[in-house]
Amino acid sequence: MKNVKYLRCVTCGRTQEALPDATTCVCGGVMDVVYDYDFIRSHTTKEAISASPDHSMWRYRAFLPVEEDTPAPPLRVGWSPLYDEPRLAKELGLGRLWIKDDGQNPTASLKDRASAMAVAKALEAGYDTVACSSTGNAASSLAGNAAAAGLKSFIFVPERAPLGKVSQLLIFGATVLSVQGTYEDTFEMSKAAIERYGWYNRNAAINPYLMEGKKTVALEIAEQLGWRAPDYAALSVGDGCTIAGVWKGFRDLYAAGFIDRLPKLISVQAEKTCPINRAVETGEPWQPMPEDTLADSISVGVPRNPDKAIAAIRESNGLTVEVTDEEILAAMRYLGRTCGVFGEPAGVTGTAGLMKLCMAGKLPADAEVVSIVTGNGLKDTANAVRAAGEPIRIRPDVSLLGDVLG
Amino acid sequence: MKNVKYLRCVTCGRTQEALPDATTCVCGGVMDVVYDYDFIRSHTTKEAISASPDHSMWRYRAFLPVEEDTPAPPLRVGWSPLYDEPRLAKELGLGRLWIKDDGQNPTASLKDRASAMAVAKALEAGYDTVACSSTGNAASSLAGNAAAAGLKSFIFVPERAPLGKVSQLLIFGATVLSVQGTYEDTFEMSKAAIERYGWYNRNAAINPYLMEGKKTVALEIAEQLGWRAPDYAALSVGDGCTIAGVWKGFRDLYAAGFIDRLPKLISVQAEKTCPINRAVETGEPWQPMPEDTLADSISVGVPRNPDKAIAAIRESNGLTVEVTDEEILAAMRYLGRTCGVFGEPAGVTGTAGLMKLCMAGKLPADAEVVSIVTGNGLKDTANAVRAAGEPIRIRPDVSLLGDVLG
Repeated sequence: MKNVKYLRCVTCGRTQEALPDATTCVCGGVMDVVYDYDFIRSHTTKEAISASPDHSMWRYRAFLPVEEDTPAPPLRVGWSPLYDEPRLAKELGLGRLWIKDDGQNPTASLKDRASAMAVAKALEAGYDTVACSSTGNAASSLAGNAAAAGLKSFIFVPERAPLGKVSQLLIFGATVLSVQGTYEDTFEMSKAAIERYGWYNRNAAINPYLMEGKKTVALEIAEQLGWRAPDYAALSVGDGCTIAGVWKGFRDLYAAGFIDRLPKLISVQAEKTCPINRAVETGEPWQPMPEDTLADSISVGVPRNPDKAIAAIRESNGLTVEVTDEEILAAMRYLGRTCGVFGEPAGVTGTAGLMKLCMAGKLPADAEVVSIVTGNGLKDTANAVRAAGEPIRIRPDVSLLGDVLG
Repeated sequence: MKNVKYLRCVTCGRTQEALPDATTCVCGGVMDVVYDYDFIRSHTTKEAISASPDHSMWRYRAFLPVEEDTPAPPLRVGWSPLYDEPRLAKELGLGRLWIKDDGQNPTASLKDRASAMAVAKALEAGYDTVACSSTGNAASSLAGNAAAAGLKSFIFVPERAPLGKVSQLLIFGATVLSVQGTYEDTFEMSKAAIERYGWYNRNAAINPYLMEGKKTVALEIAEQLGWRAPDYAALSVGDGCTIAGVWKGFRDLYAAGFIDRLPKLISVQAEKTCPINRAVETGEPWQPMPEDTLADSISVGVPRNPDKAIAAIRESNGLTVEVTDEEILAAMRYLGRTCGVFGEPAGVTGTAGLMKLCMAGKLPADAEVVSIVTGNGLKDTANAVRAAGEPIRIRPDVSLLGDVLG
């Protein structure tokens, strides 16, 4: 990879060669991919990327840690729509607002970007099997992207995992191991199995390339805005990998001279489960918190990538905001009825936080904001029912309509 | 609309002006949009379309019944991926096979193409409200596309409609009227209400423009193949509107000289609910059949657009094939594990029929086939569970893995 220098540990600063199956540092820290921006600058341009007929995350190959001849995995991941929302902007008192709907990915979440990258690296390294532990979007995206690429996948889920989510994994042909224990048991079992059987590891915050896949959402936002950053980018935060990826994407473009300023990040967490935000707000090291929100994808009391996330929010001079479950459900309704975008609870939490900041007058009236919706509402119809309310029941007689429609 | 001559009744041949809120003929027949292909040919080229930066169904404006200045509705509908599937082709004994995944649309089905067209025409005609009766993909696509465009929507559903589907409508801000009666009662109530209140009518086979939206799936297939038709296009058939739309799309391109031959259609219906296929097979007029398949979107015993569909299958020298529910569930698993595509039952019924024809040796070994997946599996997770089987239950002890993995 001529565009990559090496991997560097976020904790201790050690560097190592960027092997395709790299995991964490010997010190246990998370590794970061370090690029040669001079190389990137001299080998691509904004114009060249904008002219690419490849409308997927792989149009940004020049910024990605893959060999020149590494094939893009088959599923079309990325290039999700960025919707300009003037009505919403006006209602919220913002200069401009765009919704980036990343639920429009093959398995319906932003996680496809990370899993597609994992599959590309597994193919590069010659693996025929990939594995992870997760009950949610990471698992379904890995299973789907692996199936399309002809790789086997092993997914470890805790036995409490809902059957609907497990069925999606099984449809994709994953071998699903339902572990009779806690999530921690499940994670440890996956770790031991990956070591024993030599599978490719797609566990978040262990595999350094996942974040590089996720950062493509920021590359797309910048390109879709005409190669510039918004004033703010708002998104939900759980493990911390996604917000760190978004920051990495904008920083890459800035370092390569493709954009001339960086956005401020708006990190939105659930009110009772906000260890990353609390660390930013207090300046203290992060502390575990209970998992207490209906937004299951960000119900993370012990985040796996807090360091990169906290650093990203601080570096960007970002904002933090916490929302209640009710505010999350309200954001689901609001996005649906004003934008036609149906997000899962964790998917719209970024928008919920943005709405809260706007109502508190915490953003300038001319602010230009992108809110990233990270997952599709069809992933969690039970909470859609909670958010949506009830239909109007009526006998089949059109003369009754006048009464109910007012 | 300079590219449109008029509307012509499929039943009696009467013509009428192509007004944006046209419905059926005075004789009750379905209207068809008749184009001026000389005009189209002299105003666009394959190259011009291929160079369009608009990666949505609206890149085909030259072939669509909209005014030049009609805005495209906001949601990004169309330009779904066409996946080349060499492994699947080999397993099925085909020359080449592509899967067109139309579950990758904003509200997760091909119906978005029809609803986006309805919204465009409603805006053209100056309506502020759209309406339809449906419990399924037509309803959710109308509600989502209307919300994004700032239109109100009224959706009539029979009271048996599952709450999950109804919640999606409510999230999109539709006024949902749950009618205490049968589907027929619901349809009649919507018809009466639309007349009384003067809403824009998006009921299938009444609004002649819906099919023109649906045909864009065929325009995309041809362009994505390098401006040519496959030998066969396989898809599921319920009301008949979609297969008629697909045929219209290929015929339009052929008439304009953009492709030099037409495909054969493969019409796939459920074994016990196949009135359109039976009519084609017997040469007799179609007869109502009971609704008896788990593929709810094509569980249509009394199709609303049989004439156009039957004509399309015959004109194309097409094939018909019927599949059981088990074969539909098997196709769900097969597509998931070999392609990473998760379709709803009716969405994969076209592939199920294709598989059946291949196993019976009914297609030539060098045949090039496109199979259209019309809806996302996340729409119907209950049947995904039925299709998927069970995970492997295991205690959290890695030494047990050897036994279960063999």
